[in-house]
Amino acid sequence: MVKISVMYPNTPGARFDHAYYRDKHMPMVKARMGDSCQYYTIDKGLAGGTPGAPPTYIGMSHIYCESIEAFQAGFGPHARDIMGDIANYTDLSPVLQISEVVVG
Amino acid sequence: MVKISVMYPNTPGARFDHAYYRDKHMPMVKARMGDSCQYYTIDKGLAGGTPGAPPTYIGMSHIYCESIEAFQAGFGPHARDIMGDIANYTDLSPVLQISEVVVG
Repeated sequence: MVKISVMYPNTPGARFDHAYYRDKHMPMVKARMGDSCQYYTIDKGLAGGTPGAPPTYIGMSHIYCESIEAFQAGFGPHARDIMGDIANYTDLSPVLQISEVVVG
Repeated sequence: MVKISVMYPNTPGARFDHAYYRDKHMPMVKARMGDSCQYYTIDKGLAGGTPGAPPTYIGMSHIYCESIEAFQAGFGPHARDIMGDIANYTDLSPVLQISEVVVG
């Protein structure tokens, strides 16, 4: 299995609507992707690794798919809709990473 | 619930022994932390978000705990042992982040 991590850098002054992301955006992503998204998780950044340090990412989601090809097949046809919704919750550009799930 | 993400930047030329990390290091972390670590996951970086782009992180683990205090109570007494094992699998310094699990 692979996970697609979508990570929003914690930039001072940036806008990020956690409620919209949780209640609207990610459910829409799942609905559009259908079974090609087996499930997803959402994180809200709380802190960094040292006392008082901010988190590196203000928010993250992780989309779990059988393979990179399954992700592309499920996401590609809806990329425009999904990307077009980003402005509704943030002015940040996410960092994307695809990982192999070694222990899930 | 919170997750502690330990993220190793994908620095060219750096050393990272994925097998040791999976088979030795993370099981040792879980054994030392006991029930304060509910479970953990491991990722191996495959790719970035654009064709041909490398992953931001070569490896990541995520340690799930009831609270930040539970993590500190479980990790703190064993920090020296756990940190001392890092050199056995990498010469990288990890980026740490604590997140609230919004959707798990």
